[in-house]
Amino acid sequence: MSTRNDGRSPSEPRAVTIERGFARRSNGSALYRCGGTTLLVTANLTEAVPGWLEGKGTGWLTAEYMMLPGSTSPRKERRADSRSTEIQRLIGRSLRAAVDTRALGPRTLHLDAEVIDADGGTRTAAITGAFVAVVDALLATLGPDATRTVLKDSVSAVSVGIVNGQGLLDLDYVEDVGAEVDLNVVRLGGGGLVEVQGTGEGGTFSRNQLTELLDLAELGLDLLTKAQREALGADWPF
Amino acid sequence: MSTRNDGRSPSEPRAVTIERGFARRSNGSALYRCGGTTLLVTANLTEAVPGWLEGKGTGWLTAEYMMLPGSTSPRKERRADSRSTEIQRLIGRSLRAAVDTRALGPRTLHLDAEVIDADGGTRTAAITGAFVAVVDALLATLGPDATRTVLKDSVSAVSVGIVNGQGLLDLDYVEDVGAEVDLNVVRLGGGGLVEVQGTGEGGTFSRNQLTELLDLAELGLDLLTKAQREALGADWPF
Amino acid sequence: MSTRNDGRSPSEPRAVTIERGFARRSNGSALYRCGGTTLLVTANLTEAVPGWLEGKGTGWLTAEYMMLPGSTSPRKERRADSRSTEIQRLIGRSLRAAVDTRALGPRTLHLDAEVIDADGGTRTAAITGAFVAVVDALLATLGPDATRTVLKDSVSAVSVGIVNGQGLLDLDYVEDVGAEVDLNVVRLGGGGLVEVQGTGEGGTFSRNQLTELLDLAELGLDLLTKAQREALGADWPF
Amino acid sequence: MSTRNDGRSPSEPRAVTIERGFARRSNGSALYRCGGTTLLVTANLTEAVPGWLEGKGTGWLTAEYMMLPGSTSPRKERRADSRSTEIQRLIGRSLRAAVDTRALGPRTLHLDAEVIDADGGTRTAAITGAFVAVVDALLATLGPDATRTVLKDSVSAVSVGIVNGQGLLDLDYVEDVGAEVDLNVVRLGGGGLVEVQGTGEGGTFSRNQLTELLDLAELGLDLLTKAQREALGADWPF
Amino acid sequence: MSTRNDGRSPSEPRAVTIERGFARRSNGSALYRCGGTTLLVTANLTEAVPGWLEGKGTGWLTAEYMMLPGSTSPRKERRADSRSTEIQRLIGRSLRAAVDTRALGPRTLHLDAEVIDADGGTRTAAITGAFVAVVDALLATLGPDATRTVLKDSVSAVSVGIVNGQGLLDLDYVEDVGAEVDLNVVRLGGGGLVEVQGTGEGGTFSRNQLTELLDLAELGLDLLTKAQREALGADWPF
Amino acid sequence: MSTRNDGRSPSEPRAVTIERGFARRSNGSALYRCGGTTLLVTANLTEAVPGWLEGKGTGWLTAEYMMLPGSTSPRKERRADSRSTEIQRLIGRSLRAAVDTRALGPRTLHLDAEVIDADGGTRTAAITGAFVAVVDALLATLGPDATRTVLKDSVSAVSVGIVNGQGLLDLDYVEDVGAEVDLNVVRLGGGGLVEVQGTGEGGTFSRNQLTELLDLAELGLDLLTKAQREALGADWPF
Repeated sequence: MSTRNDGRSPSEPRAVTIERGFARRSNGSALYRCGGTTLLVTANLTEAVPGWLEGKGTGWLTAEYMMLPGSTSPRKERRADSRSTEIQRLIGRSLRAAVDTRALGPRTLHLDAEVIDADGGTRTAAITGAFVAVVDALLATLGPDATRTVLKDSVSAVSVGIVNGQGLLDLDYVEDVGAEVDLNVVRLGGGGLVEVQGTGEGGTFSRNQLTELLDLAELGLDLLTKAQREALGADWPF
Repeated sequence: MSTRNDGRSPSEPRAVTIERGFARRSNGSALYRCGGTTLLVTANLTEAVPGWLEGKGTGWLTAEYMMLPGSTSPRKERRADSRSTEIQRLIGRSLRAAVDTRALGPRTLHLDAEVIDADGGTRTAAITGAFVAVVDALLATLGPDATRTVLKDSVSAVSVGIVNGQGLLDLDYVEDVGAEVDLNVVRLGGGGLVEVQGTGEGGTFSRNQLTELLDLAELGLDLLTKAQREALGADWPF
Repeated sequence: MSTRNDGRSPSEPRAVTIERGFARRSNGSALYRCGGTTLLVTANLTEAVPGWLEGKGTGWLTAEYMMLPGSTSPRKERRADSRSTEIQRLIGRSLRAAVDTRALGPRTLHLDAEVIDADGGTRTAAITGAFVAVVDALLATLGPDATRTVLKDSVSAVSVGIVNGQGLLDLDYVEDVGAEVDLNVVRLGGGGLVEVQGTGEGGTFSRNQLTELLDLAELGLDLLTKAQREALGADWPF
Repeated sequence: MSTRNDGRSPSEPRAVTIERGFARRSNGSALYRCGGTTLLVTANLTEAVPGWLEGKGTGWLTAEYMMLPGSTSPRKERRADSRSTEIQRLIGRSLRAAVDTRALGPRTLHLDAEVIDADGGTRTAAITGAFVAVVDALLATLGPDATRTVLKDSVSAVSVGIVNGQGLLDLDYVEDVGAEVDLNVVRLGGGGLVEVQGTGEGGTFSRNQLTELLDLAELGLDLLTKAQREALGADWPF
Repeated sequence: MSTRNDGRSPSEPRAVTIERGFARRSNGSALYRCGGTTLLVTANLTEAVPGWLEGKGTGWLTAEYMMLPGSTSPRKERRADSRSTEIQRLIGRSLRAAVDTRALGPRTLHLDAEVIDADGGTRTAAITGAFVAVVDALLATLGPDATRTVLKDSVSAVSVGIVNGQGLLDLDYVEDVGAEVDLNVVRLGGGGLVEVQGTGEGGTFSRNQLTELLDLAELGLDLLTKAQREALGADWPF
Repeated sequence: MSTRNDGRSPSEPRAVTIERGFARRSNGSALYRCGGTTLLVTANLTEAVPGWLEGKGTGWLTAEYMMLPGSTSPRKERRADSRSTEIQRLIGRSLRAAVDTRALGPRTLHLDAEVIDADGGTRTAAITGAFVAVVDALLATLGPDATRTVLKDSVSAVSVGIVNGQGLLDLDYVEDVGAEVDLNVVRLGGGGLVEVQGTGEGGTFSRNQLTELLDLAELGLDLLTKAQREALGADWPF
């Protein structure tokens, strides 16, 4: 069986590093690297909620996702496009699955994922990195007790796909472009699935292939949860 | 076991009617009703492709999705929002799975899904109805032979979910709001999966629940494919 | 004298059908067909007024007009253009002539005219159909007594024009494009003129021609008022 | 019979002055004053046509209308609103009635009407002043022979209305706000009507009232045509 | 030494005329001409402040700058561009240096500079003219005593530059385009510098050149302050 | 004499670090830190020029400047504002002073300055960092010979100001907010001034103060040029 273009085996994810506190003015932040992909995720808490939640006592979490112009080659125009819109909705839903917005009180957690280098898997990297930034933002603003109350679980995400008929974990950009099937999976640390988004890119897939891809994704998610735990060390809130 | 608020059993979809040619100036169109949900889908072919496809000989299919202001109560402001953006990307990907854009030649198929009454399942209804409009648009512009060449298969979509711990087929609006898990499945007539989008709404789901929901969805998709075939009658292109 | 391309005599309008309640979630709605022209008009009442009317005790009526992308051949881009702006201002002014906004109280009636098939006369069709939707919206929300208080009269509109020197009632698209003069007339059921908008399209017109066209328009407006009355039946509020 | 708030009789228009060449960098321009209303209209010819006219050999005339922020009290926000859109469409149609766009060749005449002081009648003032600016722009760029070929006739516009039951010529702002009926009339110098736009503001009007108002308007238009002719002197192109 | 294209000596500014009250509906206004450059500046006071100043008891002064489409040849599109943004920020800062916004109370002074003819130096002309409009606006709304309290000093601005190695005062458009260095200086009547903006256009400049240009600018600013004082006559507030 | 809040002497700048190649997909990039201020500047070359330069054989350099939402506390909304517009124009002009756009050929250098942490001096940091990114982008795309041809000199920028009557070099955020005078100076490595922008913030300044501030700025610019040279090492192109 042929290896991948960077020498990885099919079920081998790229190396992940998480640098906490990279943006010092934000309540929490993480510089997240996964192979050639680099993102800065910042988390900031504000004492207000969107209009439709006012007076309801509950909080909110919202996310923005931006590919910086220099993150691709050739340079990408700086503007919101429909893909970004789809992705930031996914990030928001995913993190809300880990946060008890009622326990947050009438506050909003703002996540901003800035893609510095785009080499595949930016949307799942944004989710995995955002969790670390959220923990730090809650610790810095509400303290450790409230952080434990507000957070229900950790959350991470990974992409898997079928390339040339072979299931692969953690696709890089070249693999992603050539994939027949692409599946993003978001899961809580405790194992509950949050999002499963599978797409046949120009082709279709079977129930059996879906099962194979989910198995591969869960493998990667175990490792990502471990990376989050190591990055947070004694600040791991559970 | 309790029945649903409109008396359906858990695995019973809502009645579907498809009225072809409702918008007479479009190349193809369908007024699609599914219970209390009504959409108009129009399909039009233009002799041009987006800039990034020019000179490549291949065609394109793109979709817009709009909730008309009168489709909800209270009235909805007329503007593109992030949910619409996410949905029209899904519609476009789904229909492209059934269309050989290379065989289409340098043309663009424009789909417009206008929601007239929103009672749950509008995004999947848009996909199922769009297929009928596409067939009629291709027949009217390229004729039956080319239609058979351009179309690889039929495509339909359905939503399923878990409400109060119970898997339900084809959620209406009230069920959708109360669902713990929401799954949209897009499938070709031949059985290949095109999109699987599962979301834990405020909760999570297990691999077993995903399997149960996929089984339920496939049941509904068989019936929707049948409804498409009946609506098209002798014009069914396969 | 030659007949028109659809066989009508110069003073013969196209057949009109009005289907009430087509959009079930709106307070009132009408699917309005006039020959090859089809519009959906919805009417919805909200318990708020624009900022500049706040605290004045009076209500407001506002209209939006949209040609759906599939309503023309070739497909029309989905965006507000200056023609739509002009038309929705006309619809708003025309319906406000029939409504006592002071009696409405601090509420806003929102009209949305969605053009499904554009074959000429869409702006006048929108006005005539809107009146039926408004009656139903008021009945559904405020009841029959308040409806009679709020409505001062019925209102309808028609287009007339001069084509090849001949005055014609109710122009279809082909006639409209070829018209030397185009006149839209809005009138209350009781006979008072609300709007008279005559335009020489590439030519000019005389006072005598204006008189001839107004006579023709009034003929059509009598029939449209009758069609509105028949559609509303026992719900006719005067 | 009571006189008007500025002492005019009902059929007496406000004094008009037209200063040619006020904006020296434009091909043609006019500072147009009518009582308390002041506009600057500039006319500029460019060697290009809108995309939909390319290759057809014919030209175009287009207009923009802007109330400068300082033209009203209190100050008006600087932005295009729906009223401006409606007005600039009227200005464009009106001037195109006087211009042979085919004889213009593949060029565009851009009119810009900037309202410096708004005291009623700005849309009709813009039309009357624009004609003078157009003549000067054509003379400066194409010369007197081509100007005579391109211009079919002069064009002017006036507003009339019914205030407290009395027909009045050339309404100022206070009269306009209180008018029961408002009628704008655009006419060529030779007498052909170009636009007739009558609106019942909160009320309606009869055929007889329309006739009375048209008579009054034609009186004013005779005087405006005379003012244009005097302003242009030897440059009057007919 | 060669004279300039309009015959001026290097240290000779263009003639300035200031016509007060040109826009009669504004609280204050000035038609400012400087050689071939003409601007209308209006000043209006509103009883409100921007959101971020609410409840702080202090006022604000803000400016907009617009090149009217007819002010250049060829015609300029009507839209805010980045140059306008930069200029209106400069105008606002400059006039705020002359105004005690605390003494103004919770009000906003809106300045609108409309360029009618652009022949160089429009941003500095806008500042010099704006001061006259501001005095008239304060006199008209708050009276002479408050005007003296609110205004700390007069303010004027001038552009200087180096063209072909020669320092020139008050550049016209042709000189501005050919300048190696361009310097705008804003100064209070009392001599305090408010803004110094020097730019090497395609080249650089030395400290000595900067000194020479500042000397030249101060010469021009003395004359402009004198022109403001003459225009205001007995209304000069200091 | 009291020291500054971070213990610096008045003429002591903050420590600068420049990390080249931080964004790996860009042609050139620099992570620039100056005390608590951090920016990422990317530089990318495209084989096209803006429309107004097409066919002229010359190139262009353009800049965008963005404060990322997480760069301030509280979080800043993600949108272009007028301050950003002013700053990106300054960055563009400054870098164009160091680049021979004619030698660049028909290409555009795109600079993107992303502010990660905003602690004062971000606009000058963007200029100083951008030069390093530009060198790397030119080396990576055109090679060392062309880089030497295209670059005329290095360029750097610094802010100085007067706080409590004392001239200070390299203001941090707290100092900037309290400054009476703020001066940004852009200078080529060879000593030629490119931009001098002095602003009296709520006050004014004298010619002597301007001289004192320029002396202070030149001190800082010598050090910044040295830092650029050290960061580039053997790649220093002059």
